[in-house]
Amino acid sequence: MTADVMPPEDASRHTLRAAVLGAGSWGTTFAAVMADAGCTVTVWGRDEKTCRQITEDHRNEGYLPGVELPAGVTATTDVRAALAGADIVAVAVPSQVARRTLEPLRDAIGPSTVAVSLMKGVELSTDRRMSEVVAEALAIPQDRVAVVSGPNLAREIARRQPTATVIASTSDATAQLVARACASSYFRPYTNRDVVGVELCGAVKNVIALAVGISQGRGLGYNTMATVITRGLVEITRLGLALGADADTFPGLAGMGDLMATCASPDSRNHTLGGHIGRGMSLDEAIAATGGTAEGVKSCRSVLELATSLGVEMPITHAVVRVLHEGLPVDQLAPLLLARPHKAEGA
Amino acid sequence: MTADVMPPEDASRHTLRAAVLGAGSWGTTFAAVMADAGCTVTVWGRDEKTCRQITEDHRNEGYLPGVELPAGVTATTDVRAALAGADIVAVAVPSQVARRTLEPLRDAIGPSTVAVSLMKGVELSTDRRMSEVVAEALAIPQDRVAVVSGPNLAREIARRQPTATVIASTSDATAQLVARACASSYFRPYTNRDVVGVELCGAVKNVIALAVGISQGRGLGYNTMATVITRGLVEITRLGLALGADADTFPGLAGMGDLMATCASPDSRNHTLGGHIGRGMSLDEAIAATGGTAEGVKSCRSVLELATSLGVEMPITHAVVRVLHEGLPVDQLAPLLLARPHKAEGA
Repeated sequence: MTADVMPPEDASRHTLRAAVLGAGSWGTTFAAVMADAGCTVTVWGRDEKTCRQITEDHRNEGYLPGVELPAGVTATTDVRAALAGADIVAVAVPSQVARRTLEPLRDAIGPSTVAVSLMKGVELSTDRRMSEVVAEALAIPQDRVAVVSGPNLAREIARRQPTATVIASTSDATAQLVARACASSYFRPYTNRDVVGVELCGAVKNVIALAVGISQGRGLGYNTMATVITRGLVEITRLGLALGADADTFPGLAGMGDLMATCASPDSRNHTLGGHIGRGMSLDEAIAATGGTAEGVKSCRSVLELATSLGVEMPITHAVVRVLHEGLPVDQLAPLLLARPHKAEGA
Repeated sequence: MTADVMPPEDASRHTLRAAVLGAGSWGTTFAAVMADAGCTVTVWGRDEKTCRQITEDHRNEGYLPGVELPAGVTATTDVRAALAGADIVAVAVPSQVARRTLEPLRDAIGPSTVAVSLMKGVELSTDRRMSEVVAEALAIPQDRVAVVSGPNLAREIARRQPTATVIASTSDATAQLVARACASSYFRPYTNRDVVGVELCGAVKNVIALAVGISQGRGLGYNTMATVITRGLVEITRLGLALGADADTFPGLAGMGDLMATCASPDSRNHTLGGHIGRGMSLDEAIAATGGTAEGVKSCRSVLELATSLGVEMPITHAVVRVLHEGLPVDQLAPLLLARPHKAEGA
């Protein structure tokens, strides 16, 4: 069950200190969100010029061109300085380097500091969810870790466009602390205990976004998009229930909400790469045209393997794997997206 | 619970006869869908030229320019000729004239003929759902009526782009007959017994599409759209549960699926009219610019009254009513779309 937290008008009544590790688009944006909610925020980044620009000019032109950051955000290349006295540490580094970034910082974290994962996907070498990686790497219990996920395209939030999000943690107190640290008139957090479901949605949505991108690249319209998203959410739900997730998570902001924003936005890498495939490129050509691979290309096979091992049917994921990795001609995708033997519509 | 019906490859193994009342965009498209599924279909229309074009040229240029209709579709201005021997009568006339169109035809309907409502909204003079209007007007029991609803933008289906839909009826046999009559490789029906939930989604989605249109007219992006749709579905679900609908309907094709297609398509009248309001037009100006009013403009107040009488909170619907009918400045809409006192995320 997901709970709404505090009215935004209370947002400035706390004096929380937050650190954000990672000065990319989402890290910088979440720092701005927390500053607007009343926190004092220090961002850690590797690039000295970016850190100086954030602190002195209140800008991060490399990632958020044209956006003015709140005065409550500063940045440093000294990670221990960033972490000093932080009530909350939000982690927004690339998923596959999270563990080795965090492990050396165990002694820099206070005994009650809460960690927030802003990362999506799984650690490929271990198949661990990102909140598990954060807890293990920092050697803190799971109940001091929270996950933020929802319809949260960074560029739009950085422009203070209204959105809502889910803060998931096995601990209500942890989730509520993080919710207080980020709630404002344009950013509305709902807490949720279902960390497994929320992280699963964040990982599998990329596979569904590929399917939507491919369909749109083939010239198919909004009915197909809506059908693929709706049926895609059904298959994510089936997998989630088999893993013990809460059914209520999937039609919520971290499930349907994030999936919809990702599939509608032309900025999503998965969506863009899928579009290239739909228009007839090979996978290698599509990766080159997108300027790098997309999360769903790597994760679709792991998701399908996991589903198969649990006896869960995921026809859309299977269709994506067949097109991307098994040479199925893209014009044979459309019927596969709808094909499924006699079953109930629900999970 | 919603059930998937027959594999498309069986589609041509029946010899059902179908009539479609109404030669507009959705009526003509559904006729083509049934013909592609193996039915012999006769469309009734008022306009002789359109009927001749459908029968002789396999086209309906006024409503579906550039689309070639299957040979199994013919049309006539003689409604009794269209109905003769029909196993299925699909009704696609404007909602507010359905009752007076159907009442004189009671004796033209066979004793086991099934009626299908392709109409959305409610009859304003009685507040009846359209399947109730059809059953009353034809004097047939509810279990001989089905409703078709889903992500079903007519122009895309007419081009045989893949989509799925829900066929709702209190009778499984009725729903399955209709499903057999329309299932094909590009049109995939799922049956459902929850007629109340399916029709409610079809009516309230227009109000949510107005809210999305207004937000986009204000320049807000995909996060806001996804949040409004997700939270909009939550408030539709709350209302539906208070009316005895089945919770599984709402995240399905007739709920989330239809809502998403309607909100994403630039062709939706509600979405278009909302966009004009968002860009600063008055309601009258927006209606003029859209070329007529949109369903949600009329129905948002009835929906809010119904919700209020049941003690159900619908903050997005309320915000739309305030902007359209109570003079709230449109720039005060955004925070209202997110504002809601402490509550659970689910229904």
